[in-house]
Amino acid sequence: MTDDILDRLQATIASRRGAPEAKGASYTAQLFARGRSRIAQKLGEEAIETVIAACGDDPAKIVPEAADLLYHLLVLLADAGLTLEDVRAELERREGTGGLAEKAARTL
Amino acid sequence: MTDDILDRLQATIASRRGAPEAKGASYTAQLFARGRSRIAQKLGEEAIETVIAACGDDPAKIVPEAADLLYHLLVLLADAGLTLEDVRAELERREGTGGLAEKAARTL
Amino acid sequence: MTDDILDRLQATIASRRGAPEAKGASYTAQLFARGRSRIAQKLGEEAIETVIAACGDDPAKIVPEAADLLYHLLVLLADAGLTLEDVRAELERREGTGGLAEKAARTL
Amino acid sequence: MTDDILDRLQATIASRRGAPEAKGASYTAQLFARGRSRIAQKLGEEAIETVIAACGDDPAKIVPEAADLLYHLLVLLADAGLTLEDVRAELERREGTGGLAEKAARTL
Repeated sequence: MTDDILDRLQATIASRRGAPEAKGASYTAQLFARGRSRIAQKLGEEAIETVIAACGDDPAKIVPEAADLLYHLLVLLADAGLTLEDVRAELERREGTGGLAEKAARTL
Repeated sequence: MTDDILDRLQATIASRRGAPEAKGASYTAQLFARGRSRIAQKLGEEAIETVIAACGDDPAKIVPEAADLLYHLLVLLADAGLTLEDVRAELERREGTGGLAEKAARTL
Repeated sequence: MTDDILDRLQATIASRRGAPEAKGASYTAQLFARGRSRIAQKLGEEAIETVIAACGDDPAKIVPEAADLLYHLLVLLADAGLTLEDVRAELERREGTGGLAEKAARTL
Repeated sequence: MTDDILDRLQATIASRRGAPEAKGASYTAQLFARGRSRIAQKLGEEAIETVIAACGDDPAKIVPEAADLLYHLLVLLADAGLTLEDVRAELERREGTGGLAEKAARTL
């Protein structure tokens, strides 16, 4: 499954974790250095941008925002000691029970 | 790549699109029936829940919220005529240029 | 200043704090019973709805969302032992220094 | 009611609307120049910051975020041709019917 960009991206992100917070540090390393709250804040901000793009007239503008959202979600998972596999396992568990949207279903 | 739950989930979501808004309609079909703004709203709400879980003491609580967030992102993409492949392509393009976080980097 | 609806609303909210979580308890009392994280979540959700209304074609639809947002902000402040006066004092402090938007100015 | 900082702030914001987007333009004038979507985005971001502060251990940190949120809400209202009076009127209408939280009550 290493040919999935999501997994490659996750691996790259993991490699930046714990990297020294140097002047030339990557954005990812800087994010880890700022800590959990800051990473969560960025995730929230990218979600807002995705929402706004979704309400606009050009669907193509959703793509880069969705990419930003996924990237920050992977950083958040890594910071919490989790991986995309944990999320995939949760989605597979729901698939098994036929409850695609399960929790969300309660509040539409 | 059909053994990736994200792709299977996307296929299931696509199959619910255009399904009749019947009383017993699935949550996914209901979401499509409510339209783009409502789908975007739900995505935003799941992001908020992910942020709050991320600020808590139990990392395990992030997993179901991240699953909800991914599910609603896939619904939003489908509603806009987009797919996860479009987002993967965007992430691959950034990988090619070494700019993992590119756009995000401007505002940390 | 008790003729300002915001202050009257704040007083009403405060009176619901600590009210028993009974079956017929007001929405405000239920919110306090659910706790800080839930109140914060609702604030975030109302902000998302305000953002979506703002992106729509009918400005009038922003008003009820802004009212929801303000109401939940007052509940959050009360739950944290704060008042609108604390926020007014912060805004007055910024006014004094000519820095209306101060902190926000760093990230436009 | 001009002794309420919220009204003074609103008046100052209104005076910046339509101001030339010059190099030394105020943050408020720049926000108006960026347009509705950008203003809505900033409102959403400040809400995320308020949520995160609310989940932290220091209530005092909620105050500056709430001030930022209110400021951006006033800018959004002004951009849409609305005022805080419109929101106060909505809250007064709900007060009259005993429905403090009305719409919100449906989804706790």
